[in-house]
Amino acid sequence: MGACEVGLPTVVPADGLPARVTIWEVGARDGLQNEQSVVPVDVKIEFLDRLAAAGLSILEATSFVHPKWVPQLADAEDLLAALSRVDGVRYPVLVPNDRGLDRALAAGVRDIAIFGSATETFANKNLNRSLDEQFSMFEPVVTRARAEGLDVRAYVSMCFGDPWEGSVEPKQVAAVGKRLMDMGCSQLSLGDTIGVATPGQVEAVIAAVALDGVPVDAVAVHFHDTYGQALSNTLAALRLGVTTVDSSAGGLGGCPYAESATGNLATEDLVWMLDGLGVETGVDLDKLADTSAWMAERLGRPSPSRVVRALRG
Amino acid sequence: MGACEVGLPTVVPADGLPARVTIWEVGARDGLQNEQSVVPVDVKIEFLDRLAAAGLSILEATSFVHPKWVPQLADAEDLLAALSRVDGVRYPVLVPNDRGLDRALAAGVRDIAIFGSATETFANKNLNRSLDEQFSMFEPVVTRARAEGLDVRAYVSMCFGDPWEGSVEPKQVAAVGKRLMDMGCSQLSLGDTIGVATPGQVEAVIAAVALDGVPVDAVAVHFHDTYGQALSNTLAALRLGVTTVDSSAGGLGGCPYAESATGNLATEDLVWMLDGLGVETGVDLDKLADTSAWMAERLGRPSPSRVVRALRG
Repeated sequence: MGACEVGLPTVVPADGLPARVTIWEVGARDGLQNEQSVVPVDVKIEFLDRLAAAGLSILEATSFVHPKWVPQLADAEDLLAALSRVDGVRYPVLVPNDRGLDRALAAGVRDIAIFGSATETFANKNLNRSLDEQFSMFEPVVTRARAEGLDVRAYVSMCFGDPWEGSVEPKQVAAVGKRLMDMGCSQLSLGDTIGVATPGQVEAVIAAVALDGVPVDAVAVHFHDTYGQALSNTLAALRLGVTTVDSSAGGLGGCPYAESATGNLATEDLVWMLDGLGVETGVDLDKLADTSAWMAERLGRPSPSRVVRALRG
Repeated sequence: MGACEVGLPTVVPADGLPARVTIWEVGARDGLQNEQSVVPVDVKIEFLDRLAAAGLSILEATSFVHPKWVPQLADAEDLLAALSRVDGVRYPVLVPNDRGLDRALAAGVRDIAIFGSATETFANKNLNRSLDEQFSMFEPVVTRARAEGLDVRAYVSMCFGDPWEGSVEPKQVAAVGKRLMDMGCSQLSLGDTIGVATPGQVEAVIAAVALDGVPVDAVAVHFHDTYGQALSNTLAALRLGVTTVDSSAGGLGGCPYAESATGNLATEDLVWMLDGLGVETGVDLDKLADTSAWMAERLGRPSPSRVVRALRG
């Protein structure tokens, strides 16, 4: 360690923040699905095992989207068959439709996530459906999953801006979120898919969602760091009472349409802030940074996480 | 522009923030003094001219530290002689001691900054003085500068952590800041030199400084993004009423002891957030990003600013 490196932040709590935050770790899914290369299944399994050992309790493991669309996660069945689940850790998987749910049930999955769109254009491009048609696609999936005793999370993409439509109305995000929750989803993850949000907008969208009757403890935030805004947006959300934050170990992932864009909020950068604020996460930052440094070596490029680069660069 | 790029954030104000923030742009000084290579004086001048044209009204231009310590800024006299000052723009320079002040006065400088340390070890290493002795070094400089009608800013380094001492007491930061202000400085810039701070700590340090009688409108914050915390710390400071924020165009700069460490908060990342919050800065983000992309080319490496990479990558 050089003279300018330190291992841990000084702990100074701030008013108006939750005592504990649950991190929904998406690196193995949202991170790896955006990699150019396909990561071998045994590396993915070691990655998940190491993340669990670092104290993360929710590990989004893979996706049952058709392999034609996400070849990086075509090994979903193999991965889930070989994975040793750690007690107390949840391993949700992404499920787009009935066929995906069949595959998830056959693989013994207990937690799934569906992914809706807040905008017409992205519903078209990502789901090949209109904004309205997405609900008829998701409804039977959620109903059957609930009947099988599964927990279902609903992602909503493009909540803060859309690359084709520009601005997105908070009311529209709230309306989409409400319909997905009414189907029986237990949690709503508000996604800033292109990373453009700023804190006032975060407050406005969460307020609109709450006004439509979704309680704030059922809301998660999912920020991308494309414009460097992810952590300050997270802070704004925590001040409103949000207690679940999506992030990606090492900042893995990104936008498949823009090579230079950085990906999800890095779990390490989030944990540094929460550790400093005395907000409990259960995560061991040291082990986590080791894991991301190890994964960066496997991927052959440096981690975009600033904490990982500062501690392990 | 690819499909995932957008040019401007959606504007949604948030409560409890100032209507206007003054950006103290340090790229030409704090940024370039940390570069491996010496940037030619005509490039520095073009950089400053472009920053002024982008709407920045305070441009820290250079430093009168002895060239032995900062060879990158050894051309301070040449730069100031050749620079055409833009009306309404201030061009402060760093001055460590009496000899530095002589040089600054000879160069027609109207704004200077001194740089103290919040910790004993850094005072030793950076100033070759004890914590206490630094005041006797600065006092005659400030007194003479004020007598000449100059404005004097006081930087305090290591306000949130020190690589040798670890934690730093807010009371100690406040005591150092108070003594520098009592000499006749007009503004106190609280520096997180190694980028470790988190928002609760920012609040605690600003509160301690206020308790010692320094008004919050005389406080500026100076965050480094080494651990990805700079922007959320800035948001915390703004909520306490701070209205001057130091940043560096393109995120230039860094820690000379750790090559992997990123530098100052990038001005573009700051302006993105402030534009989104509807907080006035007078800065044209588009022109600024062009300037940083141009400078990144001159330096032969990509800008660490996420906004610059997203917009111009």
